[in-house]
Amino acid sequence: MKNIDWYSDFVDLDYRPTRTDIVCLFRFEPARGISVKEAVGRIASESSAGTWTTLNKVPSRLQKVMATSYEIRGNFVKVSYPIELWEEGNASQLLSGVAGNIFGMKALKNLRLVDISIPKAYLKHFEGPQFGIEGIRKILKIKDRPITGAVAKPKIGWSASEHAQIAYETWMGGFDLVKDDENLTSTSFNRFEDRIRLCAKMRDKAEKETGERKSALINITGETKLMEKRAKMLHDFGWEYAMIDVVTSGMSAVQTLRETCEEYGLAIHAHRAMHAAFDRNPRHGMTMLVLAKMMRLVGVDQIHIGTAVGKLVGSRDEIIDIRNEITAKVLPEKSVKINYKVLFQDWNNFKPVLPISSGGLHPGLIPAVMNTLGSDIGILVSGGIHGHPKGTRSGAKAVMQAIDATMQKISLQEYAMAHTELKEALGKWGFMKPK
Amino acid sequence: MKNIDWYSDFVDLDYRPTRTDIVCLFRFEPARGISVKEAVGRIASESSAGTWTTLNKVPSRLQKVMATSYEIRGNFVKVSYPIELWEEGNASQLLSGVAGNIFGMKALKNLRLVDISIPKAYLKHFEGPQFGIEGIRKILKIKDRPITGAVAKPKIGWSASEHAQIAYETWMGGFDLVKDDENLTSTSFNRFEDRIRLCAKMRDKAEKETGERKSALINITGETKLMEKRAKMLHDFGWEYAMIDVVTSGMSAVQTLRETCEEYGLAIHAHRAMHAAFDRNPRHGMTMLVLAKMMRLVGVDQIHIGTAVGKLVGSRDEIIDIRNEITAKVLPEKSVKINYKVLFQDWNNFKPVLPISSGGLHPGLIPAVMNTLGSDIGILVSGGIHGHPKGTRSGAKAVMQAIDATMQKISLQEYAMAHTELKEALGKWGFMKPK
Repeated sequence: MKNIDWYSDFVDLDYRPTRTDIVCLFRFEPARGISVKEAVGRIASESSAGTWTTLNKVPSRLQKVMATSYEIRGNFVKVSYPIELWEEGNASQLLSGVAGNIFGMKALKNLRLVDISIPKAYLKHFEGPQFGIEGIRKILKIKDRPITGAVAKPKIGWSASEHAQIAYETWMGGFDLVKDDENLTSTSFNRFEDRIRLCAKMRDKAEKETGERKSALINITGETKLMEKRAKMLHDFGWEYAMIDVVTSGMSAVQTLRETCEEYGLAIHAHRAMHAAFDRNPRHGMTMLVLAKMMRLVGVDQIHIGTAVGKLVGSRDEIIDIRNEITAKVLPEKSVKINYKVLFQDWNNFKPVLPISSGGLHPGLIPAVMNTLGSDIGILVSGGIHGHPKGTRSGAKAVMQAIDATMQKISLQEYAMAHTELKEALGKWGFMKPK
Repeated sequence: MKNIDWYSDFVDLDYRPTRTDIVCLFRFEPARGISVKEAVGRIASESSAGTWTTLNKVPSRLQKVMATSYEIRGNFVKVSYPIELWEEGNASQLLSGVAGNIFGMKALKNLRLVDISIPKAYLKHFEGPQFGIEGIRKILKIKDRPITGAVAKPKIGWSASEHAQIAYETWMGGFDLVKDDENLTSTSFNRFEDRIRLCAKMRDKAEKETGERKSALINITGETKLMEKRAKMLHDFGWEYAMIDVVTSGMSAVQTLRETCEEYGLAIHAHRAMHAAFDRNPRHGMTMLVLAKMMRLVGVDQIHIGTAVGKLVGSRDEIIDIRNEITAKVLPEKSVKINYKVLFQDWNNFKPVLPISSGGLHPGLIPAVMNTLGSDIGILVSGGIHGHPKGTRSGAKAVMQAIDATMQKISLQEYAMAHTELKEALGKWGFMKPK
């Protein structure tokens, strides 16, 4: 009863994508008994016009909504989707197609959406980041060094007033940002309203005492209308950012908040909690690269991409590819041996997203992060400042010293000779001897 | 430099959850060199108060926000979370905690959130389904047989008027519902507004001609405010449902639409496209069971749970567990050998969600689906009606006949003797001989 031939209609090795097609790169493994042709045909079918049996009637415009698997190399296939399939400006619908039912097909043992190439014809219905890297640097008045920030640690448990005190110490150590962690929203012991009010007071004090701009990434995650209310409150207390857990909140809400945040002049900081539920298995799910591209598309201003050196997963190469993808204007297709790595992408006039490196960092790791990702990034160091032998303020100073040293191409060990806080930090984390 | 002892604070084998704790069941595999104790300690730590290094200062209420790993059996661990950690009614925040960063920890090779037990103290900030199974049956005036529905196939490509014509044929064959598929929202050739208007016209005609109630699951997926507008339009055209791609739209938007749909008296049909990106690998990610529970929590009225017999993944046992979870009032903890299956759950006054069985069905498979899941379900048969030799209307009739036969405990082959449409369907799909 299998209609294998039906799937042939979704495979055409001579097909060349048009300028308006969306192209997806998948890694696939057919299930036992399924040929490569059937596998790639089913991928293109189920992610576009679908079907499973012979039909009596098909629409006259069927050709215009069928995807085509057109290039197969080993376990990789490129699939091209006509622009007509997609609603203008609807990122959730795009995911429902290219990252929807296909992951659950029995005909495939594993399937991974590796990359997506988005044509200008689709991009034009989105606005991308409101501020981008340049806009963020302007807000914070930081010219060329990495933006610095810290989460209070433990990440939850502080009262709003304790939280504000830690924020103050962080800012006074030279940091630009304090940040809520992904699971801190508004709890009985630390209400959102109290936190933003008390932190605003300490921010004003820190700004006055340092003459520097100080800001915060405060987590508004929740039901959409609650997020909108919280965005307005942030604006009312003079904040420049709203932070959203973009995966657990979801694409529809992020799109809604992109508009709300423009209304209130807020930049969006995207925390990616839950991404590793679908991007960690290299043979199945969707890559962090695709998530990061979708977030540039819908318009966040900053997003976590990993460290390559800390406590969380993500290889150096992968993180550099993501960094490039969210910051470059045009990316040529890149492949390594027969494996694809990234597809061609022209971001047109979309602003670059500030890549955020975070997770298990301390001052001794700063050169490694900057050598990998450059200085046009945000670096979050949290336990790595609060765990400093002299406390948070000294810890933040140690990180700022590590950044200064790296910007000046001086080794941390040398720089530490004249910088006590850095010296103590390197001592604590076992980095006094060059690695 | 590892502070393994720190993680001991998050492990207490003598701990017993309080009546207000949220309890999660994880399957875990420690990375090389990581002990079981460190692994389960890190799971509890990163999903609650976190940290990674020794700190100078901890909040006095730390105990009240720390999770505790308290029961380890093989690769399974139960983790208990104090209610204080969680914001009232914020489902996205819950996921950011128990299904967030932990999936990306290097200390674990694999981690899967298997189940979550939600106490009344947390439930009470949510409303659950507005209609539930009883409410849906009342809307559709169907007493005890499965609710039936079909997607137009191919799933995208029809104009709004062709779509309405297929809907009419489906209804005239005896079906209760027509349904949009996950990637059909509003496209240049089939605008949402046109589709709901033209389908409403055909619905009124079909209702008049059959004397039966006819309805539709029309896909409103998009940016949150767009979904709200579309929900209102559905209401204005006399529809009873809104359909949402709940994973690609995201938790925040579903919570928002739960309120909107109550305002407009609409039931919510949850399509789960993308679930298999994180639930398919049995060793990593999050189970469909947890997604289904979260959806009962935030209050959808219907959700896809699989067929156990069609084209998509999902074992019979797993699908029965999910069916039980979204329909029962109280579920006792259940384990098989040393493996946990489901945790205790008391849903209190939350209405049951109608389980939807869908994906690759045809009339011949109806008894298998009903024998597995009972008759308190929705069954979607799409290609399996449109592919009928005599077309959609006859296909729908064949399915209704298969349901009648199964309700009366008569074999399809016997029933087909006096029912032409069923006979032709069984012939086409090779089910004329009993299997």
